[in-house]
Amino acid sequence: MSAANLIDSFKADLEAIESSLLSVIEPGLPASLRDPIHYFLKLPGKKIRPLLALCASRAVGGSVEAALPAAVAVELFHDFTLIHDDIMDQDELRRGFAAMHVKYGDSTAILVGDAMIGLSFQELMKISAPVLEPVVKQFSEALVRVCEGQALDKEFENRDAVTVDEYLEMIGKKTAWLLQASCAMGAMCGGGTPDQVDQLARFGYNLGLGFQIQDDLLDFVADQAKLGKKVGSDFEMHKKTYVTLKYREMVENDPDLGARYPHDLGGFPDFAAFQTAIHEMGVVDAVREVVQHYHDQTLDALAAVTPLSDDNPLYRITRFLQSRQY
Amino acid sequence: MSAANLIDSFKADLEAIESSLLSVIEPGLPASLRDPIHYFLKLPGKKIRPLLALCASRAVGGSVEAALPAAVAVELFHDFTLIHDDIMDQDELRRGFAAMHVKYGDSTAILVGDAMIGLSFQELMKISAPVLEPVVKQFSEALVRVCEGQALDKEFENRDAVTVDEYLEMIGKKTAWLLQASCAMGAMCGGGTPDQVDQLARFGYNLGLGFQIQDDLLDFVADQAKLGKKVGSDFEMHKKTYVTLKYREMVENDPDLGARYPHDLGGFPDFAAFQTAIHEMGVVDAVREVVQHYHDQTLDALAAVTPLSDDNPLYRITRFLQSRQY
Repeated sequence: MSAANLIDSFKADLEAIESSLLSVIEPGLPASLRDPIHYFLKLPGKKIRPLLALCASRAVGGSVEAALPAAVAVELFHDFTLIHDDIMDQDELRRGFAAMHVKYGDSTAILVGDAMIGLSFQELMKISAPVLEPVVKQFSEALVRVCEGQALDKEFENRDAVTVDEYLEMIGKKTAWLLQASCAMGAMCGGGTPDQVDQLARFGYNLGLGFQIQDDLLDFVADQAKLGKKVGSDFEMHKKTYVTLKYREMVENDPDLGARYPHDLGGFPDFAAFQTAIHEMGVVDAVREVVQHYHDQTLDALAAVTPLSDDNPLYRITRFLQSRQY
Repeated sequence: MSAANLIDSFKADLEAIESSLLSVIEPGLPASLRDPIHYFLKLPGKKIRPLLALCASRAVGGSVEAALPAAVAVELFHDFTLIHDDIMDQDELRRGFAAMHVKYGDSTAILVGDAMIGLSFQELMKISAPVLEPVVKQFSEALVRVCEGQALDKEFENRDAVTVDEYLEMIGKKTAWLLQASCAMGAMCGGGTPDQVDQLARFGYNLGLGFQIQDDLLDFVADQAKLGKKVGSDFEMHKKTYVTLKYREMVENDPDLGARYPHDLGGFPDFAAFQTAIHEMGVVDAVREVVQHYHDQTLDALAAVTPLSDDNPLYRITRFLQSRQY
């Protein structure tokens, strides 16, 4: 399924998400908050997290409307993390446009991110008891976990040795936790049973891990024309990703491999030589297996709640994310 | 009542606040979050907001323990705003020590502030239904309002004309709202009636406005030795405060004054000349009256809930804040 097809099949949901999102911009907000928030909310984006929230509600027999506040909250949360991370990482582009801090300056970008957290909690306050409490609990914990994930990511940049397990903890917190929260909160709003909520949380978490590791792999094996950015950029920057950490783990744990291949990426003459090595050594196959493991876990959790058919919106989103070859 | 006396009379409360605050630092937090959070929580501070929360609970017949999560949350919230504001305002000192961004860098300071918001909401989740909902609602709205206040403050720096009413809106959001929330949340946790909660919210809001305007005035009339910083710094920086805005309003609205005094602070040869002018014109008296008005409102709201006696901890805090001459 292509992105265009996916968007088409969720047209009504995406419209509901967009109009609810824009409605958080109260007319009374100072212009120096209102305008930048509007700018960011209008940037293109796949809106995967709010779609997961709405579809998780549907999956447990709930309505889209019941999960709209949760959907808006998780998208605002995601936006806040992008805005603050772009300052920290000095990234200048976001979704193809100027990052918030580039367009409005660091101070505004910090403050807008903060305000978005506030707006996201305010949005959640539209949810009634007794669902409100577990929803806010899930969301608050996600906020701490995502900050931990970003902290670990920055720590890893300055550390020599990072294990694959440490990397999994980092992406679990930085990426998978919010997908988990999106699904769990949607299921709670839809009136799901505790078991349904747990399974959909597991679905979201594994979806996130599989997606991130697949994303890491694509930087080494994708068709450059389809990926839309230079393949091998993680290699050039010596970035610690699942692929490079797995490479290092194999070279260091296997004396035979350790004798044949350099321990550091700097030991390769070019990206092509590294590509050849990770294919020969079985790194690519090993990473594909890990991705497949998380894909299987994702579908296993989903199947515990709702049949895996093309009528199932969560299944369609999952297939879309898992089938990315670029 | 001196600061030392105040601290002494709240010794047990302050110990409870400090140990609860430090307990939010989970051992599992990454070191790059844990260490800076610990640094900031150990800085000296009067802990006015958490004390207000605890004493508001007492004032409605509740326990200190019931309000501890709210107390911790409002202090973490206050700390987060200080950390992010110090980046925006490029302030290098906080509570006499290196500001977070000076000691740990901007990226860490942004992230630690974000994490503190998450930790503050997590702390609130210790509160049980049915009190949880109104507490989280109050706290979420405070987060948005405080961001609005900071946005207005930054906007005003770049605007020529700001009215006294606009300034009141700004300090209402930036300063008074969190004092209001501290009192309201404490009263809710203590089992206060809706009327008691409303009165204590009004108490906190007016306390905040009175405190801020008094603080503005002290920069023009305080005894420099007691203030501990240079009197007249707001004048030197042409800062928009209640005093300078009131001066401008009087000069612009009264043709007689307008003919005798410069419209801009730059028209004065020095600070002493401006001091003489604001005394002659009645600016100082007018500001003192406004401060008195908010002091009266503060005590009026408090008296609706609990007698104004020295046994009353909220009255003691109020008298301490209102009696500052430095």
